[in-house]
Amino acid sequence: MRTIFYISDGTALTAEAFGKAMLSMFPLKVIHKTLAFIDTIEKAELAVNKINQAYQESGERPIIFHTFVSIDIKRVITSSKGSCYDFLDYFVAPLSKELNMAAQPKTHRTHGIQENNDVRDNYDFRIDAVNYTLANDDGSNISDYDEADIILLGVSRTGKTPTSLYLALHYGIKAANYPLTEDDNMENLQLPKVLKPFRHKIYGLTLDPQRLHEIRSKRREGSRYASMQQCRFELQEVEKMYRREAIPFLDSTRFSVEEIAAKILAETNLERHRF
Amino acid sequence: MRTIFYISDGTALTAEAFGKAMLSMFPLKVIHKTLAFIDTIEKAELAVNKINQAYQESGERPIIFHTFVSIDIKRVITSSKGSCYDFLDYFVAPLSKELNMAAQPKTHRTHGIQENNDVRDNYDFRIDAVNYTLANDDGSNISDYDEADIILLGVSRTGKTPTSLYLALHYGIKAANYPLTEDDNMENLQLPKVLKPFRHKIYGLTLDPQRLHEIRSKRREGSRYASMQQCRFELQEVEKMYRREAIPFLDSTRFSVEEIAAKILAETNLERHRF
Repeated sequence: MRTIFYISDGTALTAEAFGKAMLSMFPLKVIHKTLAFIDTIEKAELAVNKINQAYQESGERPIIFHTFVSIDIKRVITSSKGSCYDFLDYFVAPLSKELNMAAQPKTHRTHGIQENNDVRDNYDFRIDAVNYTLANDDGSNISDYDEADIILLGVSRTGKTPTSLYLALHYGIKAANYPLTEDDNMENLQLPKVLKPFRHKIYGLTLDPQRLHEIRSKRREGSRYASMQQCRFELQEVEKMYRREAIPFLDSTRFSVEEIAAKILAETNLERHRF
Repeated sequence: MRTIFYISDGTALTAEAFGKAMLSMFPLKVIHKTLAFIDTIEKAELAVNKINQAYQESGERPIIFHTFVSIDIKRVITSSKGSCYDFLDYFVAPLSKELNMAAQPKTHRTHGIQENNDVRDNYDFRIDAVNYTLANDDGSNISDYDEADIILLGVSRTGKTPTSLYLALHYGIKAANYPLTEDDNMENLQLPKVLKPFRHKIYGLTLDPQRLHEIRSKRREGSRYASMQQCRFELQEVEKMYRREAIPFLDSTRFSVEEIAAKILAETNLERHRF
């Protein structure tokens, strides 16, 4: 099998994003290896050994996605027997021309904390958002919803918690979430009173009944909670309520956390605090 | 000020990663706009209006980073007055040649859940890791450390929780964390008994005393807990203990959560479960 290397003198997150987007174009089974913080000639030489060894063992030429600030270290990597791709190479010149500005490469500018105060504040903002989200997870605290940027609503196991955390960690969005349970009188489901003043901030999640049944069964196999009948009933009632209350909602069945978060942002026009 | 657009028929996460990496080469203040799920000609035309309007209002040509699967929709975007960059354009042909395989573009392959069972399992793996991390945050549960992939250790407010969540959400790593507090007898700090059987999984975090003082002061201004003296003392004791116990550790002062996570992965060789 072919080995894909993501290599950088920084976190390699950009090389990973670049490489994964490229590979998504090809239906291919591969082995992934990330080599981050390759910031000395010696480390680069060790990386080259790994690349060449992967070639020798598999007989297939490894693919290398890399981003380097240091030209000298990059040169060591491109001397390997791998097939090397560096997207910065191709775009720096045209962008530099468009911006009428020389490039000033600097390690760790992409995913680091900068001295610049704006960025520092943005960074603290994300940590504050994570703390808020943890304190307001799963309806555990209902007194701070005035601070929320968004409140995710849904029955148990529809992805509220991972989505809230993703929104907080990535975008600095204070995302609370509130679970609808049997206590909310499912037979005649109303928007919980505590949420009524914050209706404009609410976003609903729903799921395919079969998928919810599978997820819940992993937790409590054979229970009423996990039964297909109960899953179907709860989802039907909650979707009815979303429609009646004009709460925007998303069926998250076929989406990853990244996609759910991106869809919510696109639909609500919530501001990303990350940049 | 120049407006930067990140546009895609999917989440636009790849366009954002690509664009941010490019912009990191230039010391430039800009306005960021993400337009995700631009998956019809009509939406693309609205996007073009926004691009052209930003040009008109600022007098500066907007920069467009885009990734599209649909050629027709892409053509609408590139007809705008923005300066357009698409890295897939340049690399698909050489990679296709190297792999000896035609490209098969498909929306949502990068950040979506695939039908493929491996990917589905990997996705569930991440959600399981998030649930594990939440249940094992802040020493709240000390009975499940045999399940942990890593246990982060540190005094209060050194970044254990956001780092644990990042590791879980991104890489499917079950990251527990344990806070060292006054209850652990700071004057003669030992590795807590409950952690001793899991020493090989422990990774320490530490921080610059001044930074810790600032963070804690935001929480409890003027308290002993936040005092410079107490911060310095706790950090000194904990670092002494890390060294004595040969626990690998990182001073996270100048690093973002992404960087801390990438450094821990690079140092511990923990397996990424994401791919």
